[in-house]
Amino acid sequence: MSGSSFGTIFRVTTWGESHGPALGAVVDGCPAGLPLTEDDFTPLMNRRRPDGGLMSTARSEEDRVEILSGVFEGRTTGTPISLLIRNTDHISSDYSSIAGIYRPGHADFGFDAKYGFRDYRGGGRSSGRETAARVAAGVIAEKVLASLGISFETNVVRIGDVPFAESGEYVRKLRSKGDSAGSEVLCVARGVPAGIGDPVFRKLDAELAGALFSIGAVKAVDVGDGRLAARSTGSANNDAFRAESGRVVTRTNHSGGILGGISTGNDIVLRAYFKPTPSIGLTQDTVTRDGVECETAIRGRHDPVIGPRAAVVVESMAAITILDALLRGMSARLDSVAGFYGREEGPVLPD
Amino acid sequence: MSGSSFGTIFRVTTWGESHGPALGAVVDGCPAGLPLTEDDFTPLMNRRRPDGGLMSTARSEEDRVEILSGVFEGRTTGTPISLLIRNTDHISSDYSSIAGIYRPGHADFGFDAKYGFRDYRGGGRSSGRETAARVAAGVIAEKVLASLGISFETNVVRIGDVPFAESGEYVRKLRSKGDSAGSEVLCVARGVPAGIGDPVFRKLDAELAGALFSIGAVKAVDVGDGRLAARSTGSANNDAFRAESGRVVTRTNHSGGILGGISTGNDIVLRAYFKPTPSIGLTQDTVTRDGVECETAIRGRHDPVIGPRAAVVVESMAAITILDALLRGMSARLDSVAGFYGREEGPVLPD
Amino acid sequence: MSGSSFGTIFRVTTWGESHGPALGAVVDGCPAGLPLTEDDFTPLMNRRRPDGGLMSTARSEEDRVEILSGVFEGRTTGTPISLLIRNTDHISSDYSSIAGIYRPGHADFGFDAKYGFRDYRGGGRSSGRETAARVAAGVIAEKVLASLGISFETNVVRIGDVPFAESGEYVRKLRSKGDSAGSEVLCVARGVPAGIGDPVFRKLDAELAGALFSIGAVKAVDVGDGRLAARSTGSANNDAFRAESGRVVTRTNHSGGILGGISTGNDIVLRAYFKPTPSIGLTQDTVTRDGVECETAIRGRHDPVIGPRAAVVVESMAAITILDALLRGMSARLDSVAGFYGREEGPVLPD
Amino acid sequence: MSGSSFGTIFRVTTWGESHGPALGAVVDGCPAGLPLTEDDFTPLMNRRRPDGGLMSTARSEEDRVEILSGVFEGRTTGTPISLLIRNTDHISSDYSSIAGIYRPGHADFGFDAKYGFRDYRGGGRSSGRETAARVAAGVIAEKVLASLGISFETNVVRIGDVPFAESGEYVRKLRSKGDSAGSEVLCVARGVPAGIGDPVFRKLDAELAGALFSIGAVKAVDVGDGRLAARSTGSANNDAFRAESGRVVTRTNHSGGILGGISTGNDIVLRAYFKPTPSIGLTQDTVTRDGVECETAIRGRHDPVIGPRAAVVVESMAAITILDALLRGMSARLDSVAGFYGREEGPVLPD
Repeated sequence: MSGSSFGTIFRVTTWGESHGPALGAVVDGCPAGLPLTEDDFTPLMNRRRPDGGLMSTARSEEDRVEILSGVFEGRTTGTPISLLIRNTDHISSDYSSIAGIYRPGHADFGFDAKYGFRDYRGGGRSSGRETAARVAAGVIAEKVLASLGISFETNVVRIGDVPFAESGEYVRKLRSKGDSAGSEVLCVARGVPAGIGDPVFRKLDAELAGALFSIGAVKAVDVGDGRLAARSTGSANNDAFRAESGRVVTRTNHSGGILGGISTGNDIVLRAYFKPTPSIGLTQDTVTRDGVECETAIRGRHDPVIGPRAAVVVESMAAITILDALLRGMSARLDSVAGFYGREEGPVLPD
Repeated sequence: MSGSSFGTIFRVTTWGESHGPALGAVVDGCPAGLPLTEDDFTPLMNRRRPDGGLMSTARSEEDRVEILSGVFEGRTTGTPISLLIRNTDHISSDYSSIAGIYRPGHADFGFDAKYGFRDYRGGGRSSGRETAARVAAGVIAEKVLASLGISFETNVVRIGDVPFAESGEYVRKLRSKGDSAGSEVLCVARGVPAGIGDPVFRKLDAELAGALFSIGAVKAVDVGDGRLAARSTGSANNDAFRAESGRVVTRTNHSGGILGGISTGNDIVLRAYFKPTPSIGLTQDTVTRDGVECETAIRGRHDPVIGPRAAVVVESMAAITILDALLRGMSARLDSVAGFYGREEGPVLPD
Repeated sequence: MSGSSFGTIFRVTTWGESHGPALGAVVDGCPAGLPLTEDDFTPLMNRRRPDGGLMSTARSEEDRVEILSGVFEGRTTGTPISLLIRNTDHISSDYSSIAGIYRPGHADFGFDAKYGFRDYRGGGRSSGRETAARVAAGVIAEKVLASLGISFETNVVRIGDVPFAESGEYVRKLRSKGDSAGSEVLCVARGVPAGIGDPVFRKLDAELAGALFSIGAVKAVDVGDGRLAARSTGSANNDAFRAESGRVVTRTNHSGGILGGISTGNDIVLRAYFKPTPSIGLTQDTVTRDGVECETAIRGRHDPVIGPRAAVVVESMAAITILDALLRGMSARLDSVAGFYGREEGPVLPD
Repeated sequence: MSGSSFGTIFRVTTWGESHGPALGAVVDGCPAGLPLTEDDFTPLMNRRRPDGGLMSTARSEEDRVEILSGVFEGRTTGTPISLLIRNTDHISSDYSSIAGIYRPGHADFGFDAKYGFRDYRGGGRSSGRETAARVAAGVIAEKVLASLGISFETNVVRIGDVPFAESGEYVRKLRSKGDSAGSEVLCVARGVPAGIGDPVFRKLDAELAGALFSIGAVKAVDVGDGRLAARSTGSANNDAFRAESGRVVTRTNHSGGILGGISTGNDIVLRAYFKPTPSIGLTQDTVTRDGVECETAIRGRHDPVIGPRAAVVVESMAAITILDALLRGMSARLDSVAGFYGREEGPVLPD
């Protein structure tokens, strides 16, 4: 089944495994005319790279994005943009010991059950490395959105039970034991106009939640007050409307900027909860492909916490989702459609 | 934008407003040969109906489902099944006072921003009544799944901050004040085989989360340990594999039956968090369509808690999602495809 | 598999069999604000109805279209429009004799091979009656297009080998023998702006051809000069561009208004070729469901030529296809997107 | 709009322009376990390459296909297969003269009208070179189909008005004048089982026609007798069913192997009609981007006839379409679904 594409109008298809020659994304449906160079990818790709610090692996990829199509004279042409990222630092031998066993917390067993066999090198398609392609696509989405006045702020807010700013010692201890920690990422989108999203199955929050859950290791998503809204009362949770300089606004934002699946113009507030990195150095019980019980301790280079490098992936998926909803929304009103097409009476010379 | 369909192979399209003559669903892609009668819909439709008790509105619809197509001689034919539910108990005058104002916590303002105007009667398309069509479709999905040994157990586990079993007094007090409460629904799917779901964008948990968030008022979703996994460590959160009578199993199920987007064969465990009913009798600040600040108190018949009637909607959406993933998964392996098609050498008489 | 939906943004789902209580369509993604009443459907639905003349069956349905949702105060709301057409004149006993045999030229055998059994009454889902739902959806598409200055002219141009105007005697003779004739329908769309359609798989002509071939009995489609272009030379077939009052035009239109999958602003010219009605009164060889060879002569009421009633179906499918392409095309350029969204700096009061 | 993907389960996304560094395809949804090497692509890619003879351009690309993902230890893994083909022989200066004019018979004007500007080098995305990526994807589809006993035979049958075998002199004369000719390609698929395709919008012939029309320069498609069926009578056109060794067969095949959108088990017979190559050396009238009338004569290397190199593209698109329909069809019957999933009672060790 073709599950590697996301979006309807702005459509991203990713491909590639951790240990193949490269991975990449095809971005179809990007509006024509966006200035785009290979340097544009550097800032976000760098946010996803390991920083060599406490929270990340020693594996280091340059993650240079090459544009193979869809850009001409520095601007997007409206045709598919093919983005390529070479794998330069994979060491296959790191993974040879896990070919025959099912790593706890990983998809190995599921892959075998589904496909009959799997590319066991570094998790194959399930590797966190696949998200490099999403961030590359996210760069394009964020550039389009920025031109519409929409911006993002995304941060790790918690590691395990500890606020991020105070989490150093907590992570150091776990890491020294060969253990790992969960994490929580907060993503806020500012400037999304009111009226984006659909009322039923394609609610903006439904699409955003699906997008965030499509990132490996996400186990929970909140929109606005999220889980806390379920502990609240209507009188406390409703955001009262106010009028301000001719605009409808709300003073509070418990809803996280989405009501009934449609944006309100307020900040869109999302939280993604990541489980601890499943690859740990501690010894765990498991079974081999042949059904023999055994023990395993995962070697290789693994981040002890997922959130810090995944934050930009959360932001990228949010940007792709919001842009797709924006583009789909242009035909919601007949007067908009008529304003767009009705002005001409036939083929005209392009300006 | 066409946001009223859900699913790829087993595809559900809902239509209808709270105050039109009827609402319904078209279920396309249901396998042929499923026994189906109009009586099959009664049990689940009844779980969604108000019970006249503490937690639900006095509005009462019989919610009889009529089958208009796709069933012949008591079995589905593989062609679209059109399901119709008449609206018999709507009282439009209840809603006339809200035509010109934006109800806090509702999509009214978003609808106007998106479409330029809206059907203001009872929330129109955003009414909880739309979910009756989803439950009707869910009945069919659950029947197919039951024939494959897959079953569901779904319960309200919490109202506000109180466990459901002890929540009577809490709800009574809020209701008497004209206020409302949030709630939490737990849904467990049993018997889903290992290997269902895709590794990247169409992860089984991503699709389930999107499905649950597409239900109005859901503000958070957990899979397995959900948010708590973000507080845990890898050694505590990983589910060790064991071998049991030739099967791969896990003793714990922190993952909620899904790893890397693919089912493990364990119970699939989902939690949906509902905000409090936004329609409350207490006076709230808001603005009119013309931007004039005003006060409003919502009249009409509204449940003080959403979870009790929405639990079956959660289950229906989960069933539709899992069935669609199951049907899509049949072509994952070449040997399965060859086993399916390769056995014949040409057109044969059907058995 | 869910094959009963068509379109991406303007999405039509049809349901219903010839001999069920009703059939219908759900039209999702229609822009909000289109004036629509049940009377709007009458002219096109009447073009599809048998006229009692030489070329059509005696079966007569009123084909009144009921609007069940998506319209409020006389205008579309942007939510799904559910259209219902009751079956009032089916006589099931007419078809009982064919339950056990495979009618030549019909899908009976294919249905059994695919689904294991079938609704044999009047062709079930394969009945020409299914197209009533398409025409109902086409009415909405044509209304939207008309508001953009786009109109259609569709005619039967040939019955068998005879120009339509002179075909009376030809049809009379075939009909008296219990035989049937093929036919050719010409459909011209005027006023479609230049720039509609995509360059690769979703070429406008590819989508139109698929749409026309989805009408039962269509065996060939031409765009522009069609098959004759394959007999021509580049110098004769190319349409030279000219400038006229500031517009790019062509004097000839061999291309039929589409080049490289994108509209040129010229008339879009389509031809659909229908096979003869397969239901004929003459005796034919066939087999039973049990594989026994036998003879059959089809009783019941059948048009001797398909084109005259199907012309409006061709037009409806063309309209649905063109409208969907128009709506998808609104986001092709960044300056258009920015013009649409960029003008506002936050949520504003709708006008 | 994302128009560069094709198919639902077996989904092909192409990218790339004539004059970028490379072009390619991502094939998602290919069943796992198919043996696949880079050498497998050579035969079909060679059929698409210019042979240096009378009918093709002197431009020569090696068209070596590189596999970047989705294959492990020589077999497909079920994850996306990324295929890359480098552009090695493009000479941009050949095209500089056409940057500012609209070539007759090409999409230049449409691109400008749609996107505001275009990659004018060699037609950009509209170049016939894009089809190299389709053939690469077609190789995979044909390999899967071959394992199911399905094969193709595809030939150019006519150049202009002349049968292909006798067309040498005709082409030579046109070419020497700087003119070009139309052509007709016949494609036959053998071994497709009965029961493939859907009854309504996704009729197998509708999808095949759309697939063939998505190839640039196709202006007409026939299925079976095609246009000639419209000149025939029911008694002559119906294919009588017969029983033969326990199978339902037909002696004639006017229908081309598809009835009511569903395959009959007979050969599937398709004809694609190509217009003459629009790039001709003869002088033609046209206009510049600024609306000034002018003359142009196309320089550069262009095939004088499209059919000979496009035949394998027709076959590839047919193969992709049929495979996707086959995979979608696996869930048509409940007993098939139950047979597939019902046999297990929980997660089992993969074999």
